[in-house]
Amino acid sequence: MIGFIGGTGPEGRGLALRLARAGEKILLGSRDIERAAQAVNQLSTHVPPGSISASTNNEVAQRSDPIFIAVPYEGHRSTLSDMSGLLAHKTIVDVVAPVTFRKGVAHAIPVPEGSAAEEAQTILPNSIIVAAFHTISAHDLLDPNMSINSDVIVCSDNYNAKQLGIHLAGKIEGVRGIDGGELHNASYVENLTALLLNINKIYKTRSAIRISGI
Amino acid sequence: MIGFIGGTGPEGRGLALRLARAGEKILLGSRDIERAAQAVNQLSTHVPPGSISASTNNEVAQRSDPIFIAVPYEGHRSTLSDMSGLLAHKTIVDVVAPVTFRKGVAHAIPVPEGSAAEEAQTILPNSIIVAAFHTISAHDLLDPNMSINSDVIVCSDNYNAKQLGIHLAGKIEGVRGIDGGELHNASYVENLTALLLNINKIYKTRSAIRISGI
Repeated sequence: MIGFIGGTGPEGRGLALRLARAGEKILLGSRDIERAAQAVNQLSTHVPPGSISASTNNEVAQRSDPIFIAVPYEGHRSTLSDMSGLLAHKTIVDVVAPVTFRKGVAHAIPVPEGSAAEEAQTILPNSIIVAAFHTISAHDLLDPNMSINSDVIVCSDNYNAKQLGIHLAGKIEGVRGIDGGELHNASYVENLTALLLNINKIYKTRSAIRISGI
Repeated sequence: MIGFIGGTGPEGRGLALRLARAGEKILLGSRDIERAAQAVNQLSTHVPPGSISASTNNEVAQRSDPIFIAVPYEGHRSTLSDMSGLLAHKTIVDVVAPVTFRKGVAHAIPVPEGSAAEEAQTILPNSIIVAAFHTISAHDLLDPNMSINSDVIVCSDNYNAKQLGIHLAGKIEGVRGIDGGELHNASYVENLTALLLNINKIYKTRSAIRISGI
């Protein structure tokens, strides 16, 4: 079962919706079980019956593998630190892009470790980290009638976990998983999110990326 | 006339070839006029007669506008510093991506100013800087029979210069210029080059990017 920690934000709900429609079973977590239940209720009309269940973040960490991390970047370090024991030996799919807005312009937040994903690896040395799903618009994922047209670049230092990430990306209609190499490359992909947000504002659209030549 | 400083490397020659085929007049510069003449001679069978001429970097700086900077990143700071007087009040199209290889893996080189383009702006406070053309494979550009399939993300703090960059990108067959916002965003685009080089190695291809949703 795929778990989501911080699953009630737009990115978490959007990915849960799309993966549930692709046949996956999802455990959607929040610190507050009521908020998780609300989110699951809201998604329920768009997914197969029983495919998404609500839970606390802690229960998600105990019962799921892989586990998606979909908290805002502001809570990334503290959430992972608090749950490091529960997350040991699990595959962690980190979808967090460290982005902040100044005067309406998106800026990548510098991360001492290089990227949110490498920060996760430092905090969770016994977990397997996969960085993926940064560049798809949460709003597009959440709109059940919106077709997605995007590649998802998947980075990890663990071969099998990276293949799992590529496989899960490819299960979402309109999405192709691309092997993005080692976890170090996650910084380049996370930063793309800031660029795409700025392009969205200029073109009044929701952009995403495709890698041509593959 | 479009100038190229450091125009004898693969990226400079490739862009000169494509822009000349699109009808532009090009002055291709090198520190060594003989090397520039060799490069022009090599390109001459693939472009309209007389569309590319050889020159020194200094003469390019004097006679051209806009001026493409296509030196290796190692020579970026010193080249621009040496020519800062000649480059004042010109539009500078910086195509340099700060990338190095360690154990066969491409890494973005950290730039104190944030990006090569912002470094150029610091060194050339009286020039107009445009960052563009980072993510197209030089090898594809140089192969006259290879069709290009790529967007070019153009960043600048000057509106007119940015439109010029978008226009020039769009003149290359198979290429679309995308408004990438302010010069600050150049770091995200330059870093993409490292990611694409690593993806190229994994897939044994020459990749590029497309922005979907525009």
